[in-house]
Amino acid sequence: MYLTSNDIDDLSRGAAFLGTGGGGDPHIGALMVKEAIKRHGPVKLVQLAELGDDEVVLPAAMMGAPSVMMEKVPRGTESLVAFEALERRCNVTADYTMPVECGGINSMIPLYVAALRGIPVVDADGQGRAFPELQMETFAVHGVHGSPMALASESDEVFLIDTGADDVRMEWFARGLAIRMGGMALLSSYPMRGRQAKASAIPGCVSLSIAIGKLLVEATHEISRIETQLRELFAPTTYGEVHQVFEGKVTDVERRTVGGFTQGSAALLGPESELLIEFQNENVVARRAGQPVAMVPDLICVVEADTLVPITAERLRYGQRVRVFVVGAPAQLRTPAALELMGPRAFGLDFDYLPIEKAVAV
Amino acid sequence: MYLTSNDIDDLSRGAAFLGTGGGGDPHIGALMVKEAIKRHGPVKLVQLAELGDDEVVLPAAMMGAPSVMMEKVPRGTESLVAFEALERRCNVTADYTMPVECGGINSMIPLYVAALRGIPVVDADGQGRAFPELQMETFAVHGVHGSPMALASESDEVFLIDTGADDVRMEWFARGLAIRMGGMALLSSYPMRGRQAKASAIPGCVSLSIAIGKLLVEATHEISRIETQLRELFAPTTYGEVHQVFEGKVTDVERRTVGGFTQGSAALLGPESELLIEFQNENVVARRAGQPVAMVPDLICVVEADTLVPITAERLRYGQRVRVFVVGAPAQLRTPAALELMGPRAFGLDFDYLPIEKAVAV
Repeated sequence: MYLTSNDIDDLSRGAAFLGTGGGGDPHIGALMVKEAIKRHGPVKLVQLAELGDDEVVLPAAMMGAPSVMMEKVPRGTESLVAFEALERRCNVTADYTMPVECGGINSMIPLYVAALRGIPVVDADGQGRAFPELQMETFAVHGVHGSPMALASESDEVFLIDTGADDVRMEWFARGLAIRMGGMALLSSYPMRGRQAKASAIPGCVSLSIAIGKLLVEATHEISRIETQLRELFAPTTYGEVHQVFEGKVTDVERRTVGGFTQGSAALLGPESELLIEFQNENVVARRAGQPVAMVPDLICVVEADTLVPITAERLRYGQRVRVFVVGAPAQLRTPAALELMGPRAFGLDFDYLPIEKAVAV
Repeated sequence: MYLTSNDIDDLSRGAAFLGTGGGGDPHIGALMVKEAIKRHGPVKLVQLAELGDDEVVLPAAMMGAPSVMMEKVPRGTESLVAFEALERRCNVTADYTMPVECGGINSMIPLYVAALRGIPVVDADGQGRAFPELQMETFAVHGVHGSPMALASESDEVFLIDTGADDVRMEWFARGLAIRMGGMALLSSYPMRGRQAKASAIPGCVSLSIAIGKLLVEATHEISRIETQLRELFAPTTYGEVHQVFEGKVTDVERRTVGGFTQGSAALLGPESELLIEFQNENVVARRAGQPVAMVPDLICVVEADTLVPITAERLRYGQRVRVFVVGAPAQLRTPAALELMGPRAFGLDFDYLPIEKAVAV
């Protein structure tokens, strides 16, 4: 399957939905990729099963606080600088690139690199959503580690980090460099072979994002059916149940950039209930009267109530009318090892994961 | 000339004098090197003139706040990890290592690497003293830049930085990594060929440090002649005049760790005058009644009044009796290009360099 400029808007919208409030601004990434496809031709999307065991996959991404990414638009070529620095470091030529997460920007960066290099993108990622930190990857759960990783600044300065099997330390140092770059960095990390990608990645994030993006546009004509339609769309996947948990207005948003992350919360008020969403780049937990009703790794997705356009935490504003959907995390994120990296306690919350299926039954 | 364990104490004391309050604690480095010499044999010291034009010189050093270095003793092998990471990055085998500055720790790290690798140390450096930041090097004045540089943490994590010809950016990112390592990092930077070392380095810092160290011990028997003896020692070098500018007691010390540096000031009171010394790792400026009387790049060296043991800014304490010597900066630090990197304005002071020769004549 080849991705054309027409697919990019759907992908952008759907990836922003899976981005659960984070993953970077979808518009900037889409513009970059459309321009690259116009110049270099359509990008080939391949399924995990198509990878040769020894073929080389180098994921490509951006890291930083979304608040910063909205101010500092990447030229784009920095991502190629990081990608090729990792190739040199590993002494390989990449056969594929791949997203590390689904999200506005990080679903796009790999397409951009793929277009410039003329290589395919793997239809898979390591989160099935967006998460704020680089150690939060199913790759790591299966023993594929982030080191060595390469970073590039907007001035094409190049950095290599090798923390062995310790991906938390890798994240710590990479975040420090990104902060000193002005708040964001382009990167390539988790270098792996085809067999490792097949064993560790969550399949389908690019094509799923496109399907979600199409649905969100079409469903505006019959908006009462959106919850049902989303359920039908996710049914054949490893994701859990889909529930619309809220409809109402944004009454307060508090947001700050701390330690290289966008942190804060949004208070929502509806005719029948209120909801408080806390975010660290991505939406982490939704509470009602102080009690968590949805939490990582489940996806807490905020969309504009009538247009169904996903709203990143960065774009939340007083007075917006929104719907909040919760999508149960993919099965790959629900194992004990994955929850240790990506569950509530990994975000400093002092309770265990309560899947949305159980939460709505309470 | 071969350096034995007997030379190390003199070197340590003399380098701490040239370290002008910074350069790290002399005791820790000396212990490390003595142990390495005991195991691997004496270290050969070579003069700049002996280097072949195409031979490879990789300097070795430590960076961080001296306050942190006193708490976290390096294992030592981290310096070899950084050194060999830079060799791999540059695809070279080092013929020599070299200090980047004179100071308690940074005169020792190259000897340690040399002992372990069985290569000689070049009797030269890029400062002729100690300075707090990595861009402050005569190497850079002559177009030899710090990138690529390699860093290693105490856990043997490895980092590579390449900021091209921008050594200020290199320092900025390296400092960020060092802070996240816990406050200090081992490093190798400013990779160069023999011809570049001959063109850009200040000769003699190791042998000069040994000579100063011997003098400081011997002079305690006839302490009234110390100023004269130091003048005689520095006379054949490119350093400027030597003046004892103060003798008295430490009455107040204010010190904090900020942005990866030890910053603060010490107030001194003597029978005839007072002196305020401000430091950023190293002593930067000495003021009397608010007026600067000595400043970078001149060396402001504090020693214990009777024993003549150099006192780092980190070891300054209320009640100590001290002498303060100012040694005019080497000629290589007095060019306009060098002063731009290492003069008062490079430290945020809003006045031009007034050499000690002129200051004492005022």
